[in-house]
Amino acid sequence: MSGAGLAESGLFDRALRRVASVWRDVAQAVARTPPATGLAGEMAECLAAKGGEVSARTRAEALAGRYRAADAEGRAEFLRALASFDADPEGVRAAMERVADAADAAQRAAAKARLRRALEPPRMRLLTQFTTLPDGMKFLVDLRAELLPLAAEDPWLAALETDLRGLLANWFDVGMLELRRIDWHSAASLLEKLVQYEAVHRIRTWRDLKNRLDSDRRCYGFFHPRMPGEPLIFVEVALTEGLAASVQALLDEKAPVQDPATADAAVFYSINNCQRGLDGIAFGNFLIKRVVADLSAEFSNLTTFATLSPMPGFRAWLAEEGAALLSAEEAEALGGAAAFDAWLADRHPLAHPLAAKAEPLLPRLAARYLVAASGRNPKRARDPVAHFHLANGARVERINRRGDVSEKGVREGLGLMVNYLYDPAQIEANHEAYAGEGKRAASAAVKRLAKG
Amino acid sequence: MSGAGLAESGLFDRALRRVASVWRDVAQAVARTPPATGLAGEMAECLAAKGGEVSARTRAEALAGRYRAADAEGRAEFLRALASFDADPEGVRAAMERVADAADAAQRAAAKARLRRALEPPRMRLLTQFTTLPDGMKFLVDLRAELLPLAAEDPWLAALETDLRGLLANWFDVGMLELRRIDWHSAASLLEKLVQYEAVHRIRTWRDLKNRLDSDRRCYGFFHPRMPGEPLIFVEVALTEGLAASVQALLDEKAPVQDPATADAAVFYSINNCQRGLDGIAFGNFLIKRVVADLSAEFSNLTTFATLSPMPGFRAWLAEEGAALLSAEEAEALGGAAAFDAWLADRHPLAHPLAAKAEPLLPRLAARYLVAASGRNPKRARDPVAHFHLANGARVERINRRGDVSEKGVREGLGLMVNYLYDPAQIEANHEAYAGEGKRAASAAVKRLAKG
Amino acid sequence: MSGAGLAESGLFDRALRRVASVWRDVAQAVARTPPATGLAGEMAECLAAKGGEVSARTRAEALAGRYRAADAEGRAEFLRALASFDADPEGVRAAMERVADAADAAQRAAAKARLRRALEPPRMRLLTQFTTLPDGMKFLVDLRAELLPLAAEDPWLAALETDLRGLLANWFDVGMLELRRIDWHSAASLLEKLVQYEAVHRIRTWRDLKNRLDSDRRCYGFFHPRMPGEPLIFVEVALTEGLAASVQALLDEKAPVQDPATADAAVFYSINNCQRGLDGIAFGNFLIKRVVADLSAEFSNLTTFATLSPMPGFRAWLAEEGAALLSAEEAEALGGAAAFDAWLADRHPLAHPLAAKAEPLLPRLAARYLVAASGRNPKRARDPVAHFHLANGARVERINRRGDVSEKGVREGLGLMVNYLYDPAQIEANHEAYAGEGKRAASAAVKRLAKG
Amino acid sequence: MSGAGLAESGLFDRALRRVASVWRDVAQAVARTPPATGLAGEMAECLAAKGGEVSARTRAEALAGRYRAADAEGRAEFLRALASFDADPEGVRAAMERVADAADAAQRAAAKARLRRALEPPRMRLLTQFTTLPDGMKFLVDLRAELLPLAAEDPWLAALETDLRGLLANWFDVGMLELRRIDWHSAASLLEKLVQYEAVHRIRTWRDLKNRLDSDRRCYGFFHPRMPGEPLIFVEVALTEGLAASVQALLDEKAPVQDPATADAAVFYSINNCQRGLDGIAFGNFLIKRVVADLSAEFSNLTTFATLSPMPGFRAWLAEEGAALLSAEEAEALGGAAAFDAWLADRHPLAHPLAAKAEPLLPRLAARYLVAASGRNPKRARDPVAHFHLANGARVERINRRGDVSEKGVREGLGLMVNYLYDPAQIEANHEAYAGEGKRAASAAVKRLAKG
Repeated sequence: MSGAGLAESGLFDRALRRVASVWRDVAQAVARTPPATGLAGEMAECLAAKGGEVSARTRAEALAGRYRAADAEGRAEFLRALASFDADPEGVRAAMERVADAADAAQRAAAKARLRRALEPPRMRLLTQFTTLPDGMKFLVDLRAELLPLAAEDPWLAALETDLRGLLANWFDVGMLELRRIDWHSAASLLEKLVQYEAVHRIRTWRDLKNRLDSDRRCYGFFHPRMPGEPLIFVEVALTEGLAASVQALLDEKAPVQDPATADAAVFYSINNCQRGLDGIAFGNFLIKRVVADLSAEFSNLTTFATLSPMPGFRAWLAEEGAALLSAEEAEALGGAAAFDAWLADRHPLAHPLAAKAEPLLPRLAARYLVAASGRNPKRARDPVAHFHLANGARVERINRRGDVSEKGVREGLGLMVNYLYDPAQIEANHEAYAGEGKRAASAAVKRLAKG
Repeated sequence: MSGAGLAESGLFDRALRRVASVWRDVAQAVARTPPATGLAGEMAECLAAKGGEVSARTRAEALAGRYRAADAEGRAEFLRALASFDADPEGVRAAMERVADAADAAQRAAAKARLRRALEPPRMRLLTQFTTLPDGMKFLVDLRAELLPLAAEDPWLAALETDLRGLLANWFDVGMLELRRIDWHSAASLLEKLVQYEAVHRIRTWRDLKNRLDSDRRCYGFFHPRMPGEPLIFVEVALTEGLAASVQALLDEKAPVQDPATADAAVFYSINNCQRGLDGIAFGNFLIKRVVADLSAEFSNLTTFATLSPMPGFRAWLAEEGAALLSAEEAEALGGAAAFDAWLADRHPLAHPLAAKAEPLLPRLAARYLVAASGRNPKRARDPVAHFHLANGARVERINRRGDVSEKGVREGLGLMVNYLYDPAQIEANHEAYAGEGKRAASAAVKRLAKG
Repeated sequence: MSGAGLAESGLFDRALRRVASVWRDVAQAVARTPPATGLAGEMAECLAAKGGEVSARTRAEALAGRYRAADAEGRAEFLRALASFDADPEGVRAAMERVADAADAAQRAAAKARLRRALEPPRMRLLTQFTTLPDGMKFLVDLRAELLPLAAEDPWLAALETDLRGLLANWFDVGMLELRRIDWHSAASLLEKLVQYEAVHRIRTWRDLKNRLDSDRRCYGFFHPRMPGEPLIFVEVALTEGLAASVQALLDEKAPVQDPATADAAVFYSINNCQRGLDGIAFGNFLIKRVVADLSAEFSNLTTFATLSPMPGFRAWLAEEGAALLSAEEAEALGGAAAFDAWLADRHPLAHPLAAKAEPLLPRLAARYLVAASGRNPKRARDPVAHFHLANGARVERINRRGDVSEKGVREGLGLMVNYLYDPAQIEANHEAYAGEGKRAASAAVKRLAKG
Repeated sequence: MSGAGLAESGLFDRALRRVASVWRDVAQAVARTPPATGLAGEMAECLAAKGGEVSARTRAEALAGRYRAADAEGRAEFLRALASFDADPEGVRAAMERVADAADAAQRAAAKARLRRALEPPRMRLLTQFTTLPDGMKFLVDLRAELLPLAAEDPWLAALETDLRGLLANWFDVGMLELRRIDWHSAASLLEKLVQYEAVHRIRTWRDLKNRLDSDRRCYGFFHPRMPGEPLIFVEVALTEGLAASVQALLDEKAPVQDPATADAAVFYSINNCQRGLDGIAFGNFLIKRVVADLSAEFSNLTTFATLSPMPGFRAWLAEEGAALLSAEEAEALGGAAAFDAWLADRHPLAHPLAAKAEPLLPRLAARYLVAASGRNPKRARDPVAHFHLANGARVERINRRGDVSEKGVREGLGLMVNYLYDPAQIEANHEAYAGEGKRAASAAVKRLAKG
């Protein structure tokens, strides 16, 4: 392309704008240079590593102490000061030039590596200096938990959040984690955290907890070596004969204990992410598959690995779609669309007079919801739990009425629960089909239901 | 600046070149697209995470197995295939545009974060997938050890090496490491590694090793939680009365054992980096200071923390400088410059007839070497060991004749050994003075010697 | 002494009777030979170690299984069968002869050793064979717990109980035990046992338990290496400023947490033996002194080690002694002896109208009770808790009104609690004085009270 | 029986003598009362538990310190002082009377229990007080090791030794012990002890040791929880294809490593008791069987469990029996009986000219030695190693020429080694037959050899 052609193509103007912007950037950067005093001043000293890196880490400890002692506003200010340690614009510009000026692909590869380094904001180094705190990892995880809501409204904080997420993704890569079994011999301080973090089916008492750790149960969690007392995620499993259909039956403290040696199914009935500060860093998929492998090795008689899962979005979807989902006969039998809508809106639908007629329709609707309903992305299941398991390669196996009759279970899913089946032989193919074309795996029975 | 002014400034041409290069880059990238078969094909599948991330990690394991089984050439080929997974040039270009097009600093911050991500080559993701191997961390560290010499000659491998170093720097940040004491109750498999990694003063026998772990000795190492049997660096310490002057005395297996409760000095007589694959990732400074803290807490009677260190570059420097370092009287007393040079070149200088006259001159010359001699960088001590300790904030405390009369000690340092003193009260100031103006801390006695 | 003299002395007759009895013994032994079938038959096979000692232990495991599966009557039968394996009377007789026939002291020493062995009933060997069970130690401890009440009424079971106690005393010698700190990081299964075994001040909830393991508390227990999940005894300690006077204040979950670094007193407020089957094997004394040593080493600021203890026998003693303990004026002020007796017999004496007048008299009466009251043995304090601490070398330090206002505290001790002081400098002398002449150590204040 | 009859039966005289002896005993006891000063005085104070049992244990620690610091004579004196704390003769006599006076079997049972206690010498209590020393168990085990040779010549020390053995037998009952695998990851301090304790096939270097802990080897030991760093006994096992025939082949450091997954035999080639002070307390039988169970569980492909054992008494027996063992033809072929005797007496018989003719005869003679030769007890195999394995239920499986060509192997066993087979299905029957009638189990091949 000739110079003239280039000009015509508009690339010329763009290049001009670009260069100009780089100049502005430099100017602004100078203006934004953090003052030598106050919080940012202290941070600057940490970064300068005055007195050596060891001293810098000691100073970082003092900074962390200030953060811990601060109130919400003080913490936000701290985070903003931290975020202000952006990459040096002049350095970035120069590094970009070098990429452009590279004589060949090899030179360009090196220049790009240097550019990447030039783009690394100094605040990343500061964040890294916090790792040497006694509870450094937990400090950083909790910092991100507090940062996340603030980041939504402040682009500087959003950039800081992105940086921190990148660091944590490296440090919490699944290769760094340890799978540990949790049982009644685990530390009380750890079990207390299960109580605190269990969000799917609340643990009400220590007796309830003990029941979930009985000989016919298993609980596993991922842990980081620098946060040994903190589960990152944990899963509760029941060893049963046949696929469990009801959470209340599983959690019944008076139910007899199953002999694990004769169980043929392992039912994952609760998976909980524990650290808000690790949002977006995925472990669940790995956890389920590691636990399947462990249980298979321990119990040769297990043939079925499945979940017993809620449908948190089912009722909302039903309310949205309304009676349109019903056949004319069904609608009529229920006393009309308005009656159905009223039933759906009732506080206690399962105790409502219409329940006897309406409830039997739910499994079919649920099957359609799981197998066909989508949100904005047509390739993605509308239900978040369904999406998680389908993306992991599981299939929708069975839909259970009155599977969770707790207040929450009825409020969100009208009491229905789903079994997702993890069949090691199908996991890869299922995953591919879903990840590619959004094809959802389901058992023949569920497919029939969805069509019926 | 006007368009004309811009053109005159040459920035215009540069912008043109830059844009052109970006275009070329894109074209080359397409041409370089890895084929779907062979090693690169398998790597591409890992990266695509076909069948899900869990399956991808399983495939990465198979890849690692191929690497392990390969010979030198096969491994180089493997590394080149890995290196070829560079960042998508079109993606980089687009991200650069967005930085240039950003409307304000906040937008620009976000755009830069995106650019950084666009610059991350896919090979980094592949490297990360190796962490889940049973010995994943060690695999990656050893991979880098093999990569380092190859990287010197191949820019693509150099870029891969830079990426790997970045990952390892994050994973082996000192905040991830564990300080562990090593003693005679440690695993034999670990102690065997000390024998293998000790490079300063070779461990000859298990008896020699046991002597170094006796009650008046301490040995500490840094360990990574995912490489628990592998020391990253370790230091050997002797608890002594007064500053130790001779390595041979310290290593004498027949010497009586010092009561540690009455020792007043802790002498660091050997520090060894163990993992070639972690070159350039610094732990030594942290290790020394953590050990000083630990020993202070354990033995309240310790008042002196110092090293007993070699001067590996002393003799070479002397040979370079030659008799010019001597006064006329000294040169004459030795029988002239040539005689001095001959003595320096002798295979057994300490057993040479001139030794009686020449050796007493050495401490003064050594003091000058440590305090004044520089290499290319005038602010940096020429001796690498001196540079390490001065940069850590230590000072040159004392020079010892016949401090190491082993073959190596004489060959490199004419038998002289140095004590570097770590005085907690001075470390920061010493570090700053050296890091800033290159000022080297030394005891009054050594300063006098250097001048004398 | 001549034969005649001997005859006159009655020793002759006694010797005759003795020999006759030995004969009878032999005859009865033969008659009592356990049958080769049934439970005793199986036990006999274990003892015979048919197929070797390893097989015998396997058979002992089967026997233990039968015991575990049996009901109360089956267990009693099992124990009686076990008890029937008495020492061989003929062997005993022969061994006694050899003692009598020994030519000199040295021969006699050997003969006595052999006699001791002859007296060892085979059932001891059987009991020992149970140690190789997976939970062998706990099995034997629980066996004794079940044996103890039965032994009171059956001399054969009493003999078995004595044998078992001897074995356990050896195995649970304090030198075999491990002192372990128990805190909120301990296994939930262990903490659950504290809840179960705490008998002095009931643990009501896990929150109550957690409060007792807070940073200003300590809990220690003795454990046996073959019963690692079972505390043998444990003590709860509060670190306080000044000597604690009220259990309710100590157990108040809302009370602020004391900084342990500024505490000057360690208050032992609950000591519990956990294993009924180890009754009569004493650990409490060792536990208190080991804990005092540990706490002294951890907190240099602690100057006072004392208990906050109940007086379980106080009210019963008061009721026995009645108004005779009061001066005429006191009795009159209370409305006469009968009024005092009525008050003592009231269900809620502290809420009774007379409380305002009667309660202030209690400390003096309690002082007298502790310092002077005895049971059958005039050298022994009547109160069992007082006896335990005085025998350990502690002294009665202070008497606290309303120290335990729980239902039990009022029922047994009218709400009074005692501090016993463990002053390392006085422990030996106090112990000696009490063990010898029954002299009870008390503070000057308590002595004055007792006299007043 | 009438008085007269009794007199005639001689029992009368015996009773008289007995009573007289008791009197003498009392008198002597008084005379022997340990003085209140010196070593025995200190021991008496420990026993009196002046200042309480806790103080007594502290005093016992001081006593142990004196023992440790003493020379051989001082230690012997210490032991004699300890031995002098014999049971109180008057107490014993009274307890015997009570046995004789017992009205019925039940009373007698109680009286016998009391007699047993009266016979317990106070020195046992003192020995028990040493358990609370930091290394109390090891102290007592070593004390017995030093006591054993002295006990042979001094009846008082013999009695002390018997007492100590009884205590140790209780404390080291196999139910108290822990089976631990020892490998190259074990503490160097522990592995050093293997080197020290291995007496069957000396470990020459750490390389030799490492070879014995390689992936195709196993090593297991029994440990006591209060002597965690000290093996009590350990066994070295090789996993092989086919039964190993030569120790030198097993210990060849250059031999290729066997894949344990394809091995079909586990060969126990060295068993070592480590603690002289536990002589007579048997673990070997338990160890072998526990290891067989562990290996069976780990490797399902193992079908053969056998030893490769020396015949330490073979050559001595041959020399005793001489040419009488040979047939006339054999003797003649060797050049006559004298030639055979000379060959047997040669320093290097396997290198002797007669070896070619004599060595082939050895397996037959060895078979006869193992299957038929006895010492004083005709039911017991003459070879001590054979006796150990036969008593454990093993059978003589195979005799190997040149199985151990070390100097010791040739000196004691002319190079022959034996495989003893542990067939779980036969162990009990073999044991019974040997323990009962002294019947020795052997393979058909060995039986044929022995007859041939």
